[in-house]
Amino acid sequence: MTMSDFPVLKASASSLRTTNPIRQIVDGMKTVPNPDLADIRLSIGDPTIFGNFSVPDSVNAALVEAINSKKFNGYPPSTGYESARAAIAKAYGSDPRAPLTPADVIIASGCSGAIELAISAMADEGQNILLPRPGFSLYQTIAEARGVEVRHYDLVAEKNWEASIESIEALIDAKTAFILITNPSNPCGSNYSEAHLLELLAVAQKHRLPIFADEIYADMVFSGQTFTHIARLSTDVPVISAGGLAKRFMVPGWRLGWLTIHDRHGQLAQIRDGLNRLSQLVLGANSLLQGVLPTILLETEQSYFDNNNRMLEELANTTVEAIRKIPGLQPIAPQGAMYVMVKIDPVALPEFAGNDSRFCERLIAEQSVHCLPGACFGVPGYFRIVFTSPKEKLAEAFARMADFCRKYHVSQE
Amino acid sequence: MTMSDFPVLKASASSLRTTNPIRQIVDGMKTVPNPDLADIRLSIGDPTIFGNFSVPDSVNAALVEAINSKKFNGYPPSTGYESARAAIAKAYGSDPRAPLTPADVIIASGCSGAIELAISAMADEGQNILLPRPGFSLYQTIAEARGVEVRHYDLVAEKNWEASIESIEALIDAKTAFILITNPSNPCGSNYSEAHLLELLAVAQKHRLPIFADEIYADMVFSGQTFTHIARLSTDVPVISAGGLAKRFMVPGWRLGWLTIHDRHGQLAQIRDGLNRLSQLVLGANSLLQGVLPTILLETEQSYFDNNNRMLEELANTTVEAIRKIPGLQPIAPQGAMYVMVKIDPVALPEFAGNDSRFCERLIAEQSVHCLPGACFGVPGYFRIVFTSPKEKLAEAFARMADFCRKYHVSQE
Ligand SMILES: Cc1ncc(COP(=O)(O)O)c(C=O)c1O
Ligand SMILES: Cc1ncc(COP(=O)(O)O)c(C=O)c1O
Repeated sequence: MTMSDFPVLKASASSLRTTNPIRQIVDGMKTVPNPDLADIRLSIGDPTIFGNFSVPDSVNAALVEAINSKKFNGYPPSTGYESARAAIAKAYGSDPRAPLTPADVIIASGCSGAIELAISAMADEGQNILLPRPGFSLYQTIAEARGVEVRHYDLVAEKNWEASIESIEALIDAKTAFILITNPSNPCGSNYSEAHLLELLAVAQKHRLPIFADEIYADMVFSGQTFTHIARLSTDVPVISAGGLAKRFMVPGWRLGWLTIHDRHGQLAQIRDGLNRLSQLVLGANSLLQGVLPTILLETEQSYFDNNNRMLEELANTTVEAIRKIPGLQPIAPQGAMYVMVKIDPVALPEFAGNDSRFCERLIAEQSVHCLPGACFGVPGYFRIVFTSPKEKLAEAFARMADFCRKYHVSQE
Repeated sequence: MTMSDFPVLKASASSLRTTNPIRQIVDGMKTVPNPDLADIRLSIGDPTIFGNFSVPDSVNAALVEAINSKKFNGYPPSTGYESARAAIAKAYGSDPRAPLTPADVIIASGCSGAIELAISAMADEGQNILLPRPGFSLYQTIAEARGVEVRHYDLVAEKNWEASIESIEALIDAKTAFILITNPSNPCGSNYSEAHLLELLAVAQKHRLPIFADEIYADMVFSGQTFTHIARLSTDVPVISAGGLAKRFMVPGWRLGWLTIHDRHGQLAQIRDGLNRLSQLVLGANSLLQGVLPTILLETEQSYFDNNNRMLEELANTTVEAIRKIPGLQPIAPQGAMYVMVKIDPVALPEFAGNDSRFCERLIAEQSVHCLPGACFGVPGYFRIVFTSPKEKLAEAFARMADFCRKYHVSQE
């Protein structure tokens, strides 16, 4: 029995094709920051890292009480405690146009877990699903792991990142399983109007496709904007929506998400069965958090959300104003969430024409400012800024970015 | 646009074939308890429900501190915080025969999540895996969801549920991906000797198969027993082990589990890559728990574990002694964990010959005592008792069970 006797073992094909495009692109970039400047990270969609956004104290207090009660240490049912599902149904099913019962809710490990459940139940190997471009990369990672083909429809920058309905229609075929929308959007910060949501429902209706709506940024919108759950506008199109605590309560590490099933006419009966079955595979979210979910969702003061939204809006405005003044950069003003996409003008900044990864690479190397290239979201020529850093940090970052762009800028006069 | 226009949508084939055999069998049973007797549930593997087993107060205190610090609300890396992985490596890699570094650890949502990762990375669609019978049903549920064939090798009741090595060898073919062992075992309560673990390693070595060891009940063994991690005995066979907080710390709802990769000679390089990739799909366990994992694993007093094991052993002894006195029932004395399998003598209890589901059904209907039939674990003719109820509850349950069996017992004299 010698050591070399044992062959190197093969991993499953599906595990090896599981790839996060962001990782791949970032790993391929040379990202050695300027040693003379402190790093400023506008790249990570985690609002907790700077301390300016934080979970409500009332939530922490409820959680401590739950821990001390020792009442929530056992196994919840695979779809979640009835009380937790009832709280989600109450918090998100108050509109009579899209009512929810606890049986319409499935709790999962984070919104990511909810997305994984939905894609796995709604799409079969060999089918395709329609994803927004620019879009959040996890959808593709999950779909490809499960052998589901992804097709990208276009969001139009000039129309505040509304979906191109034609581009959706051009992709649909007999093997299309569903249309996915992200509203409000990561990476765009867009928030769709009722009119646009109705357009999306119309194309879904026309082709008899259900909609999967990732609404993790629900209600995180700025002055003058109204967030609408697409399910509330649907009379016939079946909608499954994903949500979670991560962003609204500033606790992405807590891993509590959910699906809500909006199935007016029973068309989702089999998919509901599939979702319930899949929920048994690993069981959902932490029981302590499930135990306090009624308190979290139903008793958090409205002022907490208003305050977060106001802070986010201020930071968004700071960002857009600063970027607008930088030669060669064109921000697409966000309407919500925590992100803004910035276009790199290929004429004004020819050094980076069509090469947003190089732009981000050099910005790190020269100014220690970290952003993600648009390629991470399927749209070269852009980069994404996460604007949840404190104002002074943002100001410093944008001053450096201005220096950087002035250096490479080629005047058009 | 009429309502019936929209067809009923199909769920994915993989979601519909996801089945928990326990659910299926229990759902098929008539389980209406006797209205005159209070329910006693010896069916649920959740040690927290009666309050006699509980998380250490020191763990709760550490968790409360972590919450109040607000330091652990953000996203951990997809395989878990480095500090949490280092704690697992330290707690479980102290033996120089099976050292661990943080890079050998992947944190997941519960031990179930860890098992799901391991099966998904180690076995491809069309391959087969070897599972113990009687065994924990989740392995089969996950494998079948992923299109992996399951084959069951026999555990031998007369040998304290040791594996039949011949039955393992008879199942192995070119498409076998790994051998799974559960030690200590649910549902058997067995704990394997070093000699038997070496036999299992030898058959794995002979056929060049890795071992996946579910060791969620590690160290939960009774007087005179020593628990051994199989990885510590392996010189060449690659071993992946699954563990978690659920049972040792009496917090199954918390959903924190892990894999440790024991790969002496690099044979698991590709599978390690696959596991790391898969860990990105949904992200692992709650960040607060990960934050306190070093305290939980490295600072809990040994007396906590000793005390739990002593209590479990007492309850096991109570159970075995009581069942031995019941006509027609033969308990296989456990060596650890929280379970005992009981054989239903088909001659003494002909009413239930080969029909353990009917035995459990009638026991509920007449005595309101709930147990799971052996069929749930692949072995008809047995039933499983979870003995974590308080002593008085167990005594009451066994008194009722004795009445029940005396009624159906056919004397052999
Ligand atoms: C659009 C979108 N959906 C889902 C998620 C994942 O949410 P969770 O952290 O709850 O898994 C994110 C996280 O950034 C996101 O941006
Ligand atoms: C053998 C075995 N493995 C794994 C698990 C699941 O552990 P967790 O609750 O951490 O997912 C159990 C639960 O009963 C078990 O008995």
